[in-house]
Amino acid sequence: MPKIYLDHSATTPLHPEVKKAMEPYLTEFFGNPQSLHSFGEPAKKAIEEARHKVAQLIGAKTEEIYFTASGAESNNFAIKGIAWAYQEKGNHIITSAIEHFSILYPTKTLSKWGYEVTQIPVDKFGVVNPDDVRKAIKKTTILISIMHANNEIGTIEPIKEIAQIALDYGIPFHSDGVATVGQVPVKVSDLGVSSLSLAGHTFYGPKGAAALYLKKGTRIMPLIEGGIQEGGRRGGTENVAAIVGLGKACELAEQEMEKRIQQQKHLRNRIIQELPTKIDRVYLTGHPEKRLPGHASFCIEFIEGEAMLLLLDDEGIAAASGSACTSKALKASHVLLALGIDHALAQGSIVFTLGEDNSDSDIDTLLVKLPPIVDRLRQMSPLYAKFKKGEKLEGDKECIPKK
Amino acid sequence: MPKIYLDHSATTPLHPEVKKAMEPYLTEFFGNPQSLHSFGEPAKKAIEEARHKVAQLIGAKTEEIYFTASGAESNNFAIKGIAWAYQEKGNHIITSAIEHFSILYPTKTLSKWGYEVTQIPVDKFGVVNPDDVRKAIKKTTILISIMHANNEIGTIEPIKEIAQIALDYGIPFHSDGVATVGQVPVKVSDLGVSSLSLAGHTFYGPKGAAALYLKKGTRIMPLIEGGIQEGGRRGGTENVAAIVGLGKACELAEQEMEKRIQQQKHLRNRIIQELPTKIDRVYLTGHPEKRLPGHASFCIEFIEGEAMLLLLDDEGIAAASGSACTSKALKASHVLLALGIDHALAQGSIVFTLGEDNSDSDIDTLLVKLPPIVDRLRQMSPLYAKFKKGEKLEGDKECIPKK
Repeated sequence: MPKIYLDHSATTPLHPEVKKAMEPYLTEFFGNPQSLHSFGEPAKKAIEEARHKVAQLIGAKTEEIYFTASGAESNNFAIKGIAWAYQEKGNHIITSAIEHFSILYPTKTLSKWGYEVTQIPVDKFGVVNPDDVRKAIKKTTILISIMHANNEIGTIEPIKEIAQIALDYGIPFHSDGVATVGQVPVKVSDLGVSSLSLAGHTFYGPKGAAALYLKKGTRIMPLIEGGIQEGGRRGGTENVAAIVGLGKACELAEQEMEKRIQQQKHLRNRIIQELPTKIDRVYLTGHPEKRLPGHASFCIEFIEGEAMLLLLDDEGIAAASGSACTSKALKASHVLLALGIDHALAQGSIVFTLGEDNSDSDIDTLLVKLPPIVDRLRQMSPLYAKFKKGEKLEGDKECIPKK
Repeated sequence: MPKIYLDHSATTPLHPEVKKAMEPYLTEFFGNPQSLHSFGEPAKKAIEEARHKVAQLIGAKTEEIYFTASGAESNNFAIKGIAWAYQEKGNHIITSAIEHFSILYPTKTLSKWGYEVTQIPVDKFGVVNPDDVRKAIKKTTILISIMHANNEIGTIEPIKEIAQIALDYGIPFHSDGVATVGQVPVKVSDLGVSSLSLAGHTFYGPKGAAALYLKKGTRIMPLIEGGIQEGGRRGGTENVAAIVGLGKACELAEQEMEKRIQQQKHLRNRIIQELPTKIDRVYLTGHPEKRLPGHASFCIEFIEGEAMLLLLDDEGIAAASGSACTSKALKASHVLLALGIDHALAQGSIVFTLGEDNSDSDIDTLLVKLPPIVDRLRQMSPLYAKFKKGEKLEGDKECIPKK
């Protein structure tokens, strides 16, 4: 049975050209980039070339790119590092209610250490209102962090507007770009962010290489100290092969982006339009238009996402439920709850994220295989039985939650 | 010209079997280990197998191994994480004067944040006296961190004795094992440490995979937060291929260790015994016996390490000077200064670290090539000219510094 992978936001396969670019750094050019000899030189050179490619993709200066090992590390580095660096100016941080755990948890930790954190709510589509950010600003605000797009519901946030507000007040503005960089055009100068996270494994690069863009002049304290690597801001022997792979993935993303977007939008739109014709009481989550090109996410009533995933997997289809990186943490998603979706409905979360290998035939298969799975699971649901009998349900929902 | 690599403490080549083990996780098994479908399963399984192999090598329980991306990250995680976790018990940290920057800098940062740090001095061989550790303990001591072996001078510290003292006082004891794990037998239960860092790329594993051993019951706060990975203690999508490589490298280290040690000791002893017969005023640094099997380090008077490295490199020989990970930071090494070596002599630092591919013929070549390089550089030294004329030099040194 051929397998259909619809979970690209969790991770993508490594592009063959990326793997090819990495290869020499796993064999011949194994040197430590910091070594003062000819084993170190090619490694050093390769890292700087990769840095340039990352910078190119996001319209940054080469020296504004800091390599890390994961999007989570980049986010922790930005949140903690900027908060620490500006602690003499204030202690107030503004973020949103739907951030990734690698933003949410560091801000929670900081709040235990005397920082004050304001979580901006979102509307029913998961959109942050820039005015809410403006209103939350205090004299003590030292950092605003709003994600570029949410990996669970696909909504793209009005980052440019929020960045302008941050700029007006002279407050550093971080954005988690793990779901957008490499997927849609992202230019830091256009967005106006002070820092931005990205991770190669979400756009055909390797796991283990990610980066933080940090605008020149933005202060930060290192999270991982211990050497002269990354200008003294991030210690540790560089993962040369993975960094080279990240650079190559950025280069490919730039070349392929338009094509990838067109193809993914087509497939995404098919899922969004056709799934509700095959299954009743299926609700799109996130914004209907302002969403990632390859992202289709739903809540399906009366069933649980986990069970759906397992039965889909039996049919050779891989998808996600809840937050991509923590899909084994099947508590109700904080993102879906923040949209105003109730706890029961949030359990029925399912997320399809597309990649360049997906085809119309994959979507055809999904549209054939999913409805009987939903049926089968609903047959086991006491709530569904009540619903079929026409009984009133607690927390009965419209397609888009009222809020 | 064949190249001779004598800088294995900076990084080692990837073992072909390690690369082979990694391969499927760079192609077929690309899934995110946290995904709830059959793309995630093999990745998850592979990580848990690797964890078991790491645990095996160091005699730990599988669940006591936490994967990180570098030795530096493991050290930062241990130092900051344990200091944060025990901050209600006290604020005093004991460490040594010769720690790696990834211990030194985090303790410096903590000292800015209200922690008190005591640096234990070392003797002229770089050995920490356990009694000095005992005497430094206060009621507020919450962490002792002494490295297992120093990467710059090869000295192995009396960790077992120090760990026993820490245990007597109920204080968590961390050891940076990056220079020892995979090189010499290291069993955590025998050593008695609470935590231990290790990095795969120092024993034929890949860059980008490292680990922290954390004894069950030792508290720690995460450094990188953001997911359920590593039991919630280290967020970020796992670098599956590199972790698999680390596991394989541990397996190989266990099998090959005795052989590697015997061969490296032989070559190391040749350098230590023969180099001083070819060059005058060359001083062994570190302990003459209690040192890493593949480690030969010297200070050569009247010359600078950097120039020596470049000329050696021209002859196809790769070596290091000063701290392996930061050899471009050619300030006088804090390690050499801590031994009581004066600033001028410390400049002449050179470090040879051996690996399993080195042979007697490599050492023959080194012993032929290095003396004329030293001669050539000394001809350019005004100090050497004074010395040749029999003039008294400021800071004139004996072979082993008086202290």
